[in-house]
Amino acid sequence: LHDEEGHHKTDRYPLSQVEFARVKTPFIIGIWILSASIAKIGFHMTPKLHLIFPESCLLIVVGVVIGVVLYFCTDVAVSPLTPNTFFFYMLPPIILDAGYFMPNRLFFDNLGTILLMAVVGTIFNIATIGGSLYACGLCGMFGDESATPRLLDVFLFASLISAVDPVAVLAVFEEIHVNEILYIVVFGESLLNDAVTVVMYHMMEVYNEIGLPNINAQDIASGVGSFFVVALGGTAIGIIWGFLTGLVTRFTDHVRVIEPIFIFVMAYLAYLNAEIFHMSGILAITFCGITMKNYVESNISQKSHTTVKYALKMLSSSAETIIFMFLGVATVNNKHVWNTAFVVLTITFCSVFRVVGVIFLSAIANRFRLHKLSRVDQFVMSYGGLRGAVAFALVLLVDENVVKQKDMFVTTTIAVIYFTVFLQGITIKPLVEILNVKRAQKRKP
Amino acid sequence: LHDEEGHHKTDRYPLSQVEFARVKTPFIIGIWILSASIAKIGFHMTPKLHLIFPESCLLIVVGVVIGVVLYFCTDVAVSPLTPNTFFFYMLPPIILDAGYFMPNRLFFDNLGTILLMAVVGTIFNIATIGGSLYACGLCGMFGDESATPRLLDVFLFASLISAVDPVAVLAVFEEIHVNEILYIVVFGESLLNDAVTVVMYHMMEVYNEIGLPNINAQDIASGVGSFFVVALGGTAIGIIWGFLTGLVTRFTDHVRVIEPIFIFVMAYLAYLNAEIFHMSGILAITFCGITMKNYVESNISQKSHTTVKYALKMLSSSAETIIFMFLGVATVNNKHVWNTAFVVLTITFCSVFRVVGVIFLSAIANRFRLHKLSRVDQFVMSYGGLRGAVAFALVLLVDENVVKQKDMFVTTTIAVIYFTVFLQGITIKPLVEILNVKRAQKRKP
Repeated sequence: LHDEEGHHKTDRYPLSQVEFARVKTPFIIGIWILSASIAKIGFHMTPKLHLIFPESCLLIVVGVVIGVVLYFCTDVAVSPLTPNTFFFYMLPPIILDAGYFMPNRLFFDNLGTILLMAVVGTIFNIATIGGSLYACGLCGMFGDESATPRLLDVFLFASLISAVDPVAVLAVFEEIHVNEILYIVVFGESLLNDAVTVVMYHMMEVYNEIGLPNINAQDIASGVGSFFVVALGGTAIGIIWGFLTGLVTRFTDHVRVIEPIFIFVMAYLAYLNAEIFHMSGILAITFCGITMKNYVESNISQKSHTTVKYALKMLSSSAETIIFMFLGVATVNNKHVWNTAFVVLTITFCSVFRVVGVIFLSAIANRFRLHKLSRVDQFVMSYGGLRGAVAFALVLLVDENVVKQKDMFVTTTIAVIYFTVFLQGITIKPLVEILNVKRAQKRKP
Repeated sequence: LHDEEGHHKTDRYPLSQVEFARVKTPFIIGIWILSASIAKIGFHMTPKLHLIFPESCLLIVVGVVIGVVLYFCTDVAVSPLTPNTFFFYMLPPIILDAGYFMPNRLFFDNLGTILLMAVVGTIFNIATIGGSLYACGLCGMFGDESATPRLLDVFLFASLISAVDPVAVLAVFEEIHVNEILYIVVFGESLLNDAVTVVMYHMMEVYNEIGLPNINAQDIASGVGSFFVVALGGTAIGIIWGFLTGLVTRFTDHVRVIEPIFIFVMAYLAYLNAEIFHMSGILAITFCGITMKNYVESNISQKSHTTVKYALKMLSSSAETIIFMFLGVATVNNKHVWNTAFVVLTITFCSVFRVVGVIFLSAIANRFRLHKLSRVDQFVMSYGGLRGAVAFALVLLVDENVVKQKDMFVTTTIAVIYFTVFLQGITIKPLVEILNVKRAQKRKP
């Protein structure tokens, strides 16, 4: 504390001090979690609101309000939902919760249908949505050339917008309690389509870098091959970590209190391990949860089991809450590029091809299924094809130096998410009642 | 991906990729937690080892081994235990666990003795240890002038080395099960002395900046006054957040699953809130836990209560494990400045003045206590005056531009911690048995 002349400053001893910078990051995170949780309490205290709107919608609205306040009251309107925060800290607890409490029998019984929907269905959606949007672009429906994305850019966008979102599906389906088979088919699809999304998204990125004219047969073969690497690699990593967790928990008899640590940390490491190799983290942590469950449950104490169960529920519920609130906050920014034709056509193609895909693939699946998927089932499957935060995080990751229409893609992605979460989210409950969809006998475990 | 000439590089599509940088931070944290937890399992599988050595010692040894491996096998031997990591992420769960499960009645019954030991005792130790070390320095016992710290530097060091450490006390006392009164007196002291440590440490820092000749009566008055600001302010912040938590949990009937979130997040915000104002975070989170407990327990569901209980135990246990392991890792570095006289004298003064302080203050306390502190009690209190990671984190925070002997202080602090954790930690169990110290009737709640 020397001033310019080198003399001592005789600052007096301060009786109290304020220093925010040092604790800024954890404090702000804490405040976000707290306000999201308080918002959640608020909805449940207003019973009418909560009967009409799903929680996800209300959280987005609260987020938008907070976003507007932040936008007008603070200089730096930084979106708190960065892709890294989302993929590394919010998504893993939600997917682990889903994987660990997955009804294994039901999941494997319906694995054929789930894989058909997740792999063939998603590829079908990417191809049809991407192709249709590109065709519309060629016809000049999006305006001048600056608003018309190139072939690879359209398919990059189609890759991220086609996948059904596990977080949105969980949030909406938890409130409507459809029967278990319908639930596992839609939810299983939303988990297993991650490999397709990762590969297609990454492929379009790399093809963009290679340049369309330079792509050769080898690149295309590698792209197809990388699907198996990403899917089977992610699954293998998850199964290995799951077995390791089962093994380690055999030796925890004397240190019961840290048993849950192993389950959380090792599943998380499975996720990160898959991410290191650019494989599907979602598949890794899902299969890690599925694999470890049986071993872990017979190894750990009853108290540890309760802790794992409720701590996972708590973590995933709070991550889900924050994701929807952040989606709302992130909506308020000044980089929006609204292109009505592009937005309307994207929403239309997403809806139409979802229905077409479901009907077509259900027909195939029904040839092999004992429990056939009825027309009503197919309607709920189509209607439950919600898009969500995974698409939003992926569109934020797009490199604006490569894809000139990035801002338009971001705006359109938000529009699609709002459309599915609000319109489909709000109407699915009454529709399920009107259509008399078979309900769950009891609540999920 | 353009090369220098601006042409497209025709990189082929990669079948698989490795990208560690993006997931580095969470992955390394996960690996640390996992290895610490596996080390913990290891000890409990070797029963003989575990009967002789406290876990804290074994963890330090494992840490040293890992530190040596890292030191010789990697280029960057960065210590993972930064003061910020310690104070913001590892200490809060441990103190919240302690505060929330504090036997309130016992704590308030013994509050007079605890405060006497925490405030008067710690100031006595700082004064005597600092004074003696400074006198030894004046006599030239530490070698030439470069190794002899100035008056304020000595007292800065004395402030951080005098305080009994809550993490070390918890780790050692949890294994020896002395009677509850003895436990609460030592542990309560280790919590409440934080205000003294914070103020004295900060005061010496600021006085160093003002410069010894420029300190006037106002500075000294402010220093004394700031003790009350830090102590009462921290306590008040904790109590306010505790009440708020009690209030919020009244409205969580419909969202049971996020009840534990409020307890964790609001207690953590109390801690950070106190840190923002440079008040005692330890006091804030302790009193937040004490205050909220009664309200929260009658508001939240039984399942939420179980989750809070075991999740807190899990978090604090794992934080404790990592702290001791990191202490070991941090020991291995190439900045050590070993000064035998300084180390030996510091350890001697710490031990001697701890005994003197305890005997002297117990005599005062016994005049007012119903349950007198016996000679054996006083011995355990003296012997339980362990130093630990708080001192280590504080000494790392010392500004080496102001305090030239920082490296010597760091080395000496590590030596003192090793002395108390190893020598006192290992011998306290047999001594407690030999001296026939009254044991706890049952395990702590």
